[in-house]
Amino acid sequence: MSEQSVTAQSEDFSRWYNEIVYRADLAAPSPVRGCVIIKPYGYEIWEGIKAGLDRRFKATGHQNAYFPLFIPESYIRREAQHVEGFSPELAVVTHAGGKELEEPLVVRPTSETVIGEAFSDWIQSYRDLPLLINQWANVVRWELRTRPFLRTAEFLWQEGHTAHATHDEAERETLQMLDIYADFAVNDAAIPVIKGEKSKMERFAGALRTYTIEAMMRDRRALQSGTSHNLGQNFAKAFDIRYLAESNTQEYCWTTSWGLSTRMVGAVVMAHGDDKGLRLPPKLAPYQVVIVPIFKNDSQRGAVMEAVERLQSALEDAGIRVHIDKRDGQSPGFKFNDWEMRGVPVRMEIGPRDVEKNNAVLARRDVLGRQGKQFVSQDGIVEAVQSLLTDIQRSMLEDAREFRDAHITDAASYDELRSIVADGDWARVFWDGDDDDEVSVKDETGATIRCFPFNQPSGQGKCVVSGRTTERVALFAKAY
Amino acid sequence: MSEQSVTAQSEDFSRWYNEIVYRADLAAPSPVRGCVIIKPYGYEIWEGIKAGLDRRFKATGHQNAYFPLFIPESYIRREAQHVEGFSPELAVVTHAGGKELEEPLVVRPTSETVIGEAFSDWIQSYRDLPLLINQWANVVRWELRTRPFLRTAEFLWQEGHTAHATHDEAERETLQMLDIYADFAVNDAAIPVIKGEKSKMERFAGALRTYTIEAMMRDRRALQSGTSHNLGQNFAKAFDIRYLAESNTQEYCWTTSWGLSTRMVGAVVMAHGDDKGLRLPPKLAPYQVVIVPIFKNDSQRGAVMEAVERLQSALEDAGIRVHIDKRDGQSPGFKFNDWEMRGVPVRMEIGPRDVEKNNAVLARRDVLGRQGKQFVSQDGIVEAVQSLLTDIQRSMLEDAREFRDAHITDAASYDELRSIVADGDWARVFWDGDDDDEVSVKDETGATIRCFPFNQPSGQGKCVVSGRTTERVALFAKAY
Repeated sequence: MSEQSVTAQSEDFSRWYNEIVYRADLAAPSPVRGCVIIKPYGYEIWEGIKAGLDRRFKATGHQNAYFPLFIPESYIRREAQHVEGFSPELAVVTHAGGKELEEPLVVRPTSETVIGEAFSDWIQSYRDLPLLINQWANVVRWELRTRPFLRTAEFLWQEGHTAHATHDEAERETLQMLDIYADFAVNDAAIPVIKGEKSKMERFAGALRTYTIEAMMRDRRALQSGTSHNLGQNFAKAFDIRYLAESNTQEYCWTTSWGLSTRMVGAVVMAHGDDKGLRLPPKLAPYQVVIVPIFKNDSQRGAVMEAVERLQSALEDAGIRVHIDKRDGQSPGFKFNDWEMRGVPVRMEIGPRDVEKNNAVLARRDVLGRQGKQFVSQDGIVEAVQSLLTDIQRSMLEDAREFRDAHITDAASYDELRSIVADGDWARVFWDGDDDDEVSVKDETGATIRCFPFNQPSGQGKCVVSGRTTERVALFAKAY
Repeated sequence: MSEQSVTAQSEDFSRWYNEIVYRADLAAPSPVRGCVIIKPYGYEIWEGIKAGLDRRFKATGHQNAYFPLFIPESYIRREAQHVEGFSPELAVVTHAGGKELEEPLVVRPTSETVIGEAFSDWIQSYRDLPLLINQWANVVRWELRTRPFLRTAEFLWQEGHTAHATHDEAERETLQMLDIYADFAVNDAAIPVIKGEKSKMERFAGALRTYTIEAMMRDRRALQSGTSHNLGQNFAKAFDIRYLAESNTQEYCWTTSWGLSTRMVGAVVMAHGDDKGLRLPPKLAPYQVVIVPIFKNDSQRGAVMEAVERLQSALEDAGIRVHIDKRDGQSPGFKFNDWEMRGVPVRMEIGPRDVEKNNAVLARRDVLGRQGKQFVSQDGIVEAVQSLLTDIQRSMLEDAREFRDAHITDAASYDELRSIVADGDWARVFWDGDDDDEVSVKDETGATIRCFPFNQPSGQGKCVVSGRTTERVALFAKAY
């Protein structure tokens, strides 16, 4: 909120990010290692994300429930890959109510185990399937290197957990939820994510297949923004989730899980922000319009505020989220900078001359300077603002899509891959390597397979590492 | 969900409660001591509670934020009464990321300390006040005796935390939030709570004054359903929350906190339920109307389902929450019982004859049997259902109010108090006793001071214990 300028993205993107997060008032440092406080402005973005997803989950038949924060340590150990994946990151309660616990309790890093145990109780017959549950919750993973929203020891998320009678139905669910994530990212967050499958190495611990949406940030790094897992029968076998089939036999269920977290707030910051601060897509912006009244004396103030409040009412009645910046003792210029920092999509300025002429000035956050300014009549303000918000939403998505497409390049050889990735771009390559190959590429270039995108080219090519002919391309990039 | 009848309230209320909670599918047992799983049907009631409160909080200028789950142990110790109040109930993380922590982390039992520390950073001058924050979160208190919703080791709640420039402003906030709780309880939950002040002994650990809403359950026990605390300057001093006043001096803030939890779900169960199961007030019912289609063969099915789906659409378009019970292989009678157990306010039955006559049967959950049934024309279904829901909401509140008022009796002497309480009612008495007197009444009768109600009689009387003349009455009751 100070008037100092921020570090330029081109100078130090990582520093830019940290400065923006704190100065746009999204988060504040906390006294607990690796945790941040999500401040109201950041939390409202999260509330927008929650509302957008929750609506889509419910429309597809999912119901919310709540499971315990604590998981008996023995549960985590029941699925072999799962315990291996999560053990290094667990926070453990050993004492409670003044006594040492007989069995330590793990603070949930994710809830497959405790929900698996519940499902084994709840599911008796095919009539109980599919079981479609979602949970909004906090989880804890004791990460060594943390960054606000992107990776914190505690974070907020939703985790979906479903059980099905067949593999195919579970697979359809897994893909449906990935589509919902992508639909939300594209249409609400204006982030043109790429849908694809994770490599074996990057799979969720215990999953048959993991699907992902990958987003390109403004520094061209990839951010995994949501994942959906087909868990096969692994958890069903570990937790004895069985059903009586119509054929009167006992069968193991097929389960899925899928999650999206407060990381998405970081994605919005890094996919859209510029050197002036945040740029928020209208659908997720806590305030879609900020009104800055401009006056020099009390008589001007009266006339200006009358107009401002009238316009606010009109906009709010139309369902637009409006804030009037009434702060005394701050210049309009300070306020303009401050709201640019906070990324409000539309700024409305109203001064005495605007009142006289029955006008208002609308300024777009996504197009700074004169080009983004227009004078509109107060009479048609609702329509003008609505159409501007629609255009900003569309235009931000288009910008991000152009940026993304300009920075994904086909590489025909490992040398090309290396050079593309060294430049910071994403490389698309034919890939038929094994785990070891993937590890060496990572060690040598810093890039990982973000996904095998669903959108595959037709035709074949040679794997850039093994030289084997394959039909499958992978996207390599450095990632958060 | 089975057809066995439940234990009668009159026989064993506590057993009735546990049976209802599980059989109406509000909750399920969990593998973690003292924790339950909140199942979708119970969670939807909580979502209704959240929505009703959140709307009221935002309308009065509060913003949501999120603070860390973990609190450094040393923070809890900073406010002397606070640590004494909460120490016996703390769950403590001693290990994380495979190592022993240098300082153990307490799982928050409430967040005054960590939020107090944040406020001391965020507040610089009088311009930053008032600061009005709310958090929706899970908290953990390691209670010895737990019951679903009423007292669990982990529970969900909201905790409001505000800072103000003056005592009076903090007091107004404290009372405003109590009014909001009462407004929600009365108008949404149909529970006629009594607002009042807690005695010194029952105050929040570290508060100057604690206000409460007290509800009477169907066994006549009291349930403290929400509390609002004026914290004075105690936390401001412990966490150095100061502001630069307009007079250019540094002053300590005055803070408040207020909370309402998933306990309210238990309140709804116990304030309204009967021997048939839940009775949900329409405003909080996940389904306001359940439609049970009745047919004997496929040709009837076609005609009935056509009508049922048409009526469902009409009701949903009007914003009414409707569920059609399409379960095959269950008799209408089974379904009627099942939805009575789950407390759906209105049941609609449609059979072939109703289709012919363009009728539907509406049955009220709050008035069982013929008296609560009516035939209505399908043409005016939306208006009929809307007016029925309004009437049920009103009538449930009225019932609960009559029940409450019939079971609060003035006691002129300690003997009378003792006998009223022994009968299970609440006793209203003039009270000017001290802490020791309060303890002896509790030891002798099992009753505690629920509150000094805001609604005080005019005039004076003699304290039933000390014999001193006083103007103040207290409500004594056995409580959850």
